[in-house]
Amino acid sequence: MHLLNKPTRLQPGDLIRIVAPASPLETHQLEPMQNLLTAEGFRVELGEHVLDRHGYLAGTDEARRHDLVQAFDDPSVKAIVCARGGYGASRFAADLDFAALAATRKFFIGFSDITVLHLGLNRAGLATAYAPMALSFTVERPPYVLDSFKQILHGRTATPADAPMGKAITGGTAEGIVTGGCLCLLTDSIGTQWEMDTKGKIVLIEDVDESPHRVDAMLTHLLNIGALQKAAGIVVGEMTRTDEKTDPGIGGVPWREIVTERLQGLGIPTILDYPFGHFTGMLSMPLGIRARLDADAGRLTYLEDLCE
Amino acid sequence: MHLLNKPTRLQPGDLIRIVAPASPLETHQLEPMQNLLTAEGFRVELGEHVLDRHGYLAGTDEARRHDLVQAFDDPSVKAIVCARGGYGASRFAADLDFAALAATRKFFIGFSDITVLHLGLNRAGLATAYAPMALSFTVERPPYVLDSFKQILHGRTATPADAPMGKAITGGTAEGIVTGGCLCLLTDSIGTQWEMDTKGKIVLIEDVDESPHRVDAMLTHLLNIGALQKAAGIVVGEMTRTDEKTDPGIGGVPWREIVTERLQGLGIPTILDYPFGHFTGMLSMPLGIRARLDADAGRLTYLEDLCE
Repeated sequence: MHLLNKPTRLQPGDLIRIVAPASPLETHQLEPMQNLLTAEGFRVELGEHVLDRHGYLAGTDEARRHDLVQAFDDPSVKAIVCARGGYGASRFAADLDFAALAATRKFFIGFSDITVLHLGLNRAGLATAYAPMALSFTVERPPYVLDSFKQILHGRTATPADAPMGKAITGGTAEGIVTGGCLCLLTDSIGTQWEMDTKGKIVLIEDVDESPHRVDAMLTHLLNIGALQKAAGIVVGEMTRTDEKTDPGIGGVPWREIVTERLQGLGIPTILDYPFGHFTGMLSMPLGIRARLDADAGRLTYLEDLCE
Repeated sequence: MHLLNKPTRLQPGDLIRIVAPASPLETHQLEPMQNLLTAEGFRVELGEHVLDRHGYLAGTDEARRHDLVQAFDDPSVKAIVCARGGYGASRFAADLDFAALAATRKFFIGFSDITVLHLGLNRAGLATAYAPMALSFTVERPPYVLDSFKQILHGRTATPADAPMGKAITGGTAEGIVTGGCLCLLTDSIGTQWEMDTKGKIVLIEDVDESPHRVDAMLTHLLNIGALQKAAGIVVGEMTRTDEKTDPGIGGVPWREIVTERLQGLGIPTILDYPFGHFTGMLSMPLGIRARLDADAGRLTYLEDLCE
């Protein structure tokens, strides 16, 4: 029923390493995640360069790549949680052997800029989790967000009953393997070896700090290359602060109107406002396993566990 | 010596039509360009939908596309000047028959979002001018900018002697056909039928209102697909307001440092701060004809006229 390998399910006492492939953060911003993972029964350690800082990057490209590859290569490490997004993974993605990383079946967790690595790992055959990172738990989150993340940590995929639903742009139902992530990284992947493969898939889309016309431009880019037309379903999460980022020179349109206008003509089951992305109410979203989208009900239901 | 056709040189009394393929503007913003073109001896008319407004677009996609195609199709129109950039050309670019438009050998002028149309026309065999639009002359410009634009209007390509030079990132000289434009449109073209062709070319790059890490991401995208590595030379203009657009969450690096860091390893003659882009001192830059880049001298010299 699925084309990808699944990561190995974590066991009590397993070691999780936090790495920083993108932008920098500080020690105190790691602590809530360290505490959460420890409370869930795992051991936690930090990649060598997690606290490095090099402009808007958590250390040099070589340092960040080294930490990531070493976490996959080290047999004692069972899962890899990213420190934060921001920017940076695409600077060394072309130097990664995604097939070798995927073959380790490590459980890989992160979102935002980390989309680059998900796309590469998913393409190379490993399912992953588009889910909170260390920085995510430095702010208060609704209980269902914590419940969702803990489910995922244990490789399960039931959506908490109290999580909000999405709203249909185009009704209908679809089944497919889930792909996608942060919109600007999806478009930044076009033409690369880790380009998003949308054919027959349910595509997740969210972003942060994009101006309304850039949301339009990026969706239009995916349409211009025929990517969205091939999808089985589309699930749009939050476009955080987009309506605040209106370009004063050209004016704006509320992002939900833009997304609706760009996607409604596709005739593909599509929902809006599904709770994931850069906002406090983010669900943890497995990538690379099958799900069923019921657009009329605004619901995405995973059809299998993430880990085995 | 050149692979593309050249537009037909304008004659006194020729008709120039102003069209708006991207974002909207108002009547009074058209007047300085109308006056300038008239003073240069041309007749000027407006496309039917130039003053339309549809959110951040100058009318519906169909209206904007219609005006553009009609301007190319109408034998009485000898040149097409775009009203402004902003955003919008990519929304209908896939519906254009660029080969048919290019075959008319109309003289096409614009920049910024209009990059999309330049790339398509250049690929289809027509040289064009990356040059001021109507909105550009609603602000005061240095005399050399006006001189440069008037030269281009008459199909000539000499750079005014008082225009500033660029600064070398990588020294050396290169010759090639000039391509490029606004960075986010160059990356938005990847995978489309109008994707920028960089092989053996001199690539122009500028942008506006991008955050520092997005400049990095877009250059990295062009590197990740191998586009910049194939260029003969690279000419970077202004990255307007980029240093003001630093993401508070991740911090910034001055854009000139980013551009230098991303491009200096290529071993390709490359200059920075060449005067074109979204700033008052913008030169008019022909696309699709041959030029010589002397990176040590910071100078780009066109080797042929734009029109014939």
